Amino acid sequence: MTNSMEIKPVAIFHSPLPEKFGLPRQAGLAESLAGTVVLEPEFRSPEALRGLDGFDYLWLIWGFHLNRETASEGLTVRPPRLGGNERVGVFASRSPYRPNPLGLSSVRIERVDAAAGEIHVLGADLADGTPIYDIKPYVEYADSHRGVRSGFVDGHAWKRLEVVLPREVFHQLEADSIDGLLEILAQDPRPQYQDDPERIYGLRYGDRNVRFKVEGDILTVVAVE
Amino acid sequence: MTNSMEIKPVAIFHSPLPEKFGLPRQAGLAESLAGTVVLEPEFRSPEALRGLDGFDYLWLIWGFHLNRETASEGLTVRPPRLGGNERVGVFASRSPYRPNPLGLSSVRIERVDAAAGEIHVLGADLADGTPIYDIKPYVEYADSHRGVRSGFVDGHAWKRLEVVLPREVFHQLEADSIDGLLEILAQDPRPQYQDDPERIYGLRYGDRNVRFKVEGDILTVVAVE
Repeated sequence: MTNSMEIKPVAIFHSPLPEKFGLPRQAGLAESLAGTVVLEPEFRSPEALRGLDGFDYLWLIWGFHLNRETASEGLTVRPPRLGGNERVGVFASRSPYRPNPLGLSSVRIERVDAAAGEIHVLGADLADGTPIYDIKPYVEYADSHRGVRSGFVDGHAWKRLEVVLPREVFHQLEADSIDGLLEILAQDPRPQYQDDPERIYGLRYGDRNVRFKVEGDILTVVAVE
Repeated sequence: MTNSMEIKPVAIFHSPLPEKFGLPRQAGLAESLAGTVVLEPEFRSPEALRGLDGFDYLWLIWGFHLNRETASEGLTVRPPRLGGNERVGVFASRSPYRPNPLGLSSVRIERVDAAAGEIHVLGADLADGTPIYDIKPYVEYADSHRGVRSGFVDGHAWKRLEVVLPREVFHQLEADSIDGLLEILAQDPRPQYQDDPERIYGLRYGDRNVRFKVEGDILTVVAVE
């Protein structure tokens, strides 16, 4: 049995985050972060999105197009949530390094612009330019399960940082992009186990480079370029 | 931008339902219906499933391999839930007729047999032999949204039938498969708008042919062959 399938993007994602650095680790973690699903030209008809504005959430099935390497560690991965030391099976994780590099994210629909073939969404964990292979409405009775066990994810909450945004930096940012940026920074975008209070990191956010340092649990933005 | 992707099955689904006729219309609708995810040989290692038994649900991304036709009606579909008359955009529906024929289902994990590379699940809406392209754990904080609007799905509940299973038929079925069968029949597997009380329908269920008729809201199983 082969059953291989060739899939083509139906849309491309537009986000202020062009790189892996700073991307939320799952959908919903940066719930104010705005992005746009832009249908590919052949699907860019108001018909394709008819009725979608009656839903609050949608599913995106997308490609991990920023992966430069393929899964080289066999059938296990080391989730950052477990500190990067413990291995779990690839099918017990949401790691991008998987046999078919497909991502799955539920995102909030902010506004459907059917005429333009665009869906404005909040809370996505997709980088700018990500190819999207399917868009489906979120159906609560089939998709929502509460009080269920979530394996190693349970009991391993992310530590959140306090973010200090000096007034002079604040005024350099567009007002409607600040909440999303604060949520991204609060998640601590640094690689696991880097803890150098002197180091200045750079986060690409839209056309800006946001420079920050982290001391203990406090992240301070030092410049926006 | 092409960004096309070739995806290969990581597993095959095993179910008592070999045909579209009788398949639940979404995951969870026949919550006692048992099925098995069987990893393809190259992934059939206990490592691949390590830690999955800590989760109650998982996601399957799969292929609508029973579609004989491709989407011929442009970018809209007519959901059975709306009586088959009203059109909605393909990206506002879960219809199998979509640009990339990918299905998405959350199913309950009954038991993980890591050594055999098998996951026993409940409530799937996949037919026997369905290729599965990805398996991901269900993570409640990212995947579960309550009190959200579900578009045309809200307010259009499926009518459920009362199922009559005569005693002599009951004894011809394996005890552990009866609940799943009753749930499938209660959903009314008949095509939309067929209402011929004389007609005898046949549902393939495992190696049986379950013959039934429907009069009003009552479905009566007449034979199991």
